[in-house]
Formats: sequence, C-alpha cells, structure tokens
Amino acid sequence: MHVPSAIRWHNECLELLDQRALPVEVVYLPIDSIEAAVTAIRTLAVRGAPAIGIAAAYALATSMRQVSQARFAGSLDAHGSRLKAARPTAVNLAWAVERLQARAAREPSYAALKAEAEAIHAEDRAICRAIGEAGRALIKPGTRVLTHCNAGALAVSELGTATAPLYLSHALGIPFKVYADETRPLLQGARLTAWELSQAGIDVTLLCDNAAASLMAAGEIDLVLVGTDRVTNNGDVINKIGTLNLAVLAWHFKVPFYVACPSSTFDPNTARGKDVTIEHRDANEVVNTRTAQVPAYNPAFDVTPAGLVTGLVTDRGLIEAPGDSDLPRYFGLI
Amino acid sequence: MHVPSAIRWHNECLELLDQRALPVEVVYLPIDSIEAAVTAIRTLAVRGAPAIGIAAAYALATSMRQVSQARFAGSLDAHGSRLKAARPTAVNLAWAVERLQARAAREPSYAALKAEAEAIHAEDRAICRAIGEAGRALIKPGTRVLTHCNAGALAVSELGTATAPLYLSHALGIPFKVYADETRPLLQGARLTAWELSQAGIDVTLLCDNAAASLMAAGEIDLVLVGTDRVTNNGDVINKIGTLNLAVLAWHFKVPFYVACPSSTFDPNTARGKDVTIEHRDANEVVNTRTAQVPAYNPAFDVTPAGLVTGLVTDRGLIEAPGDSDLPRYFGLI
Repeated sequence: MHVPSAIRWHNECLELLDQRALPVEVVYLPIDSIEAAVTAIRTLAVRGAPAIGIAAAYALATSMRQVSQARFAGSLDAHGSRLKAARPTAVNLAWAVERLQARAAREPSYAALKAEAEAIHAEDRAICRAIGEAGRALIKPGTRVLTHCNAGALAVSELGTATAPLYLSHALGIPFKVYADETRPLLQGARLTAWELSQAGIDVTLLCDNAAASLMAAGEIDLVLVGTDRVTNNGDVINKIGTLNLAVLAWHFKVPFYVACPSSTFDPNTARGKDVTIEHRDANEVVNTRTAQVPAYNPAFDVTPAGLVTGLVTDRGLIEAPGDSDLPRYFGLI
Repeated sequence: MHVPSAIRWHNECLELLDQRALPVEVVYLPIDSIEAAVTAIRTLAVRGAPAIGIAAAYALATSMRQVSQARFAGSLDAHGSRLKAARPTAVNLAWAVERLQARAAREPSYAALKAEAEAIHAEDRAICRAIGEAGRALIKPGTRVLTHCNAGALAVSELGTATAPLYLSHALGIPFKVYADETRPLLQGARLTAWELSQAGIDVTLLCDNAAASLMAAGEIDLVLVGTDRVTNNGDVINKIGTLNLAVLAWHFKVPFYVACPSSTFDPNTARGKDVTIEHRDANEVVNTRTAQVPAYNPAFDVTPAGLVTGLVTDRGLIEAPGDSDLPRYFGLI
C-alpha cells in the first residue's frame, strides 16, 4: 500500500501536499508563515478535519520559531486567532491551536510547541489505526462500501479515518469493493478518495453523487462509511454536503450508515447539529463559463441527525446508535 | 418570455439546437440525413423524450424526400429501425417513428410523412400547454420548486413539460422560486434548465445534486417537479439519474413529488420499472483528466417506484397517487 502523505515535517520545515492539484500533479507547498497556512487551509490545499489540525499545529509552531520571548505570548495569541478563523467549522483546527497555546502557557518556547505538534501528529496516526481496528469487522469478504468526499489518508495521516478499516482489511487480504461519490462541487471523491484507494490497490469505482440511490435500490451497497468534520453533543454529524442525502437514502434502503469519528471531532460544547453555522462557499464553485449565470446555493456541509446514524467508528471503539448513547461519557468528558 | 426553440422546421429543412454547446453558444445543426439524426440523438445534441420524438419524426420525413416509390417501404423501414436504435430508452422515439410508418402504410409519400411530423409537433405544443394548465395550481405565490435535469422548453416544444406550470404561472405574474439541480454528469440542469428559466425571467438558483437534502431539511422546498422519459404500466417513473434520490428525500422530508408526464410517455406495455433496461453511458462522462483513472458507474436513468410519486401532471389532468390508479384506463388505452 503506497499513499503519499498529506503532511510532511522534516528538518523542522512544514510542507503540505497541494490537494487542489491532485491527482494530476503531486506538489508540496512549503508553509513558512501564518499567511501561507491560512491560505492553504482556506483554499483547501489542505483539507480534512484532522489534517487541518495537524497542519495548523506545525504551522503555529513554525511561525513562532523566530519570535522573541518578550513578544511570545502576544504573537502566539495573534497567530492562533488567525488560524482559527481560517475554517471556523473545523473543530480540530481550534482544538490543535488551543492545545499548543496551553502547552506554551507552561513552556513558552518554540521547542515545546514543536514537540506538542509532533505529539498531535503521532497521536493522530495511532487514532487512525484504532479507528481501523474498531471498524474492521464491518468489512466482510465481498462487502460493497459507499463513501463520500475524502476522509482518507489525505485528510488525516497514514490510514485516514473512514478509509482506515478499508486499508487494514485490504492489508489482511479481504476482498471488498468501494464506490466513491465524486463529491461535487470540488470533486474530493473523484480526485482524492478514488485516487488514494486505487494507489493502494483497492477496487474502487467512481459515481456521480446522484447515482447513489440507483445503486442502493439495486441492492449493490452493503455499507455507507463516511468521515465527519464535527459530531455534536447529541450525536448529530456535520460532514461534507451530500452526507445527509446518503444518510436518508441508507435509512430508506435499510443500508447501515457508519461515520468514522476521531475523538477530537466530538464537540460536547455544541448541543445539536442545528446550532452549527454552516459555511457557504463561493457560487463560482458551481456557476462557471459552462453553466447559466444564475445564483447558486453552495453550502460546504450538511447536518445528519443522530437518528439516521447506525454507528460511530471511533478510536475508542464502535458506538452503535449514537443518538441514544451518552457520548460525553463515552468520550471520557464527564 | 423568450426561450429559443430546440427544433426548427422551415423551408422543409430540419435544424436542431445543439444543446451540448449551450449556454455558451447557440448553434443550430442542419439534419439532412438519418446518420445526422442518429448522431444528434445519440450524442445528446437533441435530448428530452418529446423533443427526440419530434426531431425523429421530422428527420424520418426529411430522409424520405428523395426516395423513389419503388424503394419507399424498404427505406422507411430501414431508416425507422436505425432511428429507434439511437436511444432505446426513449419511448417517444419509437412512438413517433411508428406513427409515421403507420401513416405511410396508408399514404406512402413524403408529403404525408411531413404532414404527420408537423402534426406531432403541433400536438406536442398543445400537450405542453395542457400540462401547464394541469400543474398550475401547484405553484402558489412564494412556492419554492426543486427540479432536476431538463424537462423544459429545450426538451420538448414551447413550454416544456415540468416547466410548463412554471412558465404559465410566471406569465400570470405569480412570484415563485426555482432550485435547479446541476444534474451530473452532463449538467443539463446547470446548462439548460437554469439557462432557459433565467432567460424567461424566472428566479432560479443552481445547486449541486447532493445539496438537495440540505435544502429540504431546512424547509426550503415546497414541491419537487421533474419530467420523465417513461412511465410504466404500474406508474413507476424512469427519469434522469438522480430522480430516485430526490423522490426518496422528498418522501423522507414530506415534500410533494410530482412528475410531468405527457400521455406519449406512458408505456402500458412495460409492467414495472424494473422491466426497463437502463442505459449505461460511457465512463469518460465521469472519469477525466482531473479525476483518478478508475472505473465508473454511470447509468443514464433510475427508476422511481410509483409509491414515492405524489402525482403525475399530464395533458389529461392531474393524477394523484398514480401507483394506486388505473393508468391505462386513465390514458384511454383500455
């Protein structure tokens, strides 16, 4: 299995795989300033909740490398605020920034920030592996999995989240098939998920987002497995636009609907999905020279109610019927 | 209201608006042979069930213009077979060809074929107007309509089918809003529906196919109104891939789901939707240089079970709960 890493950190320099150029070009962007990091996050050069968190942690550390002790606290605060504003929906972004800030409150040094960022990265690898182990039983010989957007290695580290059970099962020689939604408007499924899975030798077929019902009606899907940007206190799932479509279809066609959810994606401070402000992106992602020149409705995310989710695949194990579970207790938060 | 016509017939020459070039270019293709007609139908230069029927009728007549009486019956048979094979799912195509053949059995002349084609075109205009009248009550002031693909003026003649209630309501000054699915992979919604509605001055907003659930969950859709390529004997609806997605979503979110259905689209000889062979189109409509190079699942149509359809909007009036209706009797076929 050979999948490029979304995040490179060597010689204390951060490089991000420019995911806008994939799969045509494999280009790494050097990130040597907060401006560069904010731009990379905002323009989706780096995307996926955990990858954004890891990238932000390294970027914040890097940006503090030359800062004098006198200006350390002030700069860290300013840089952190700018990073957090780059993608307000990504709870991991705020989480990573705040974790570095907490470390710096005890040890105000570049070395401490760097160590904390490296720890976040290492923990993420371990989390992906744990998610893979938790979800491995869902992938039986012959299972046909439908996924949406990219919650893969490119979105996280090493094994990805929604892809981790797939990579582990593939490594064990279990034969299965993946259908990847192309995921309009930015085609993360067509450009990223289909690419990384096929690079790893997994049998993957691409489809337009609107063809999912046709596949399910034909009995061709055994499992829907997606990632998430945020799970609210009651188990509602905020994920890429189109996830709610799949959840409703899966419910209708009685297909299990699972969400890979690293603990860091759980947000106990937001009661329900409807409390989350959904980011609306530029109309020109949908309207272009080939289309009519009309307004566009272009939300980046939708909210899947907990009641439509069969289970969460987490680094702490599988949670069935998350809407009926006490998630804060499960995640060790109370 | 100003919408270009999909089909032009003047000086006994057929021209088809090349819908692959819209909305960037407005180009009419001269159709002076069966080869040209088959290519136009197969490559979707002309599309939409009724427009294909009208175009095929004119094309078949035109192709017989120079044919001697001795070879008339044989040529008509051969040309008709080639046309019918161009798009086997479009029941109107076979219907129009067979209607001209029946006329020629009585009057084997170009003049008779031409008159029959002109009659089909005139009847289609009247049918669209009748569909518009049947569906007008669905459009109340402030109604927010979601549509898919193009069942508009470009797919039919004059008012279109699914668009006919919209055009009539707009002409009466009723304010309403249309959301048009972009309709991957060929973007008929983004290129055609959004364009023709905006040309007519109707308030239209474009969205990715996968954003429909998000709109419905927010209570922003009052009505789904789509066209159809074929309605089977039991009321199942064959229409553009993605229609079944919308029908399931509409069911889940309790949004009425109506299908505009000219009588000619009703196929009493096919018992159920699952008896229809669905056309699968080329993978390169989904897989391209921007995507991973993997196989694609690319059906052109899906089957919406009659039970998910609130009503059919036909030229003979509104049929509520078509799955529980005796459609052959309704359409005067028994």
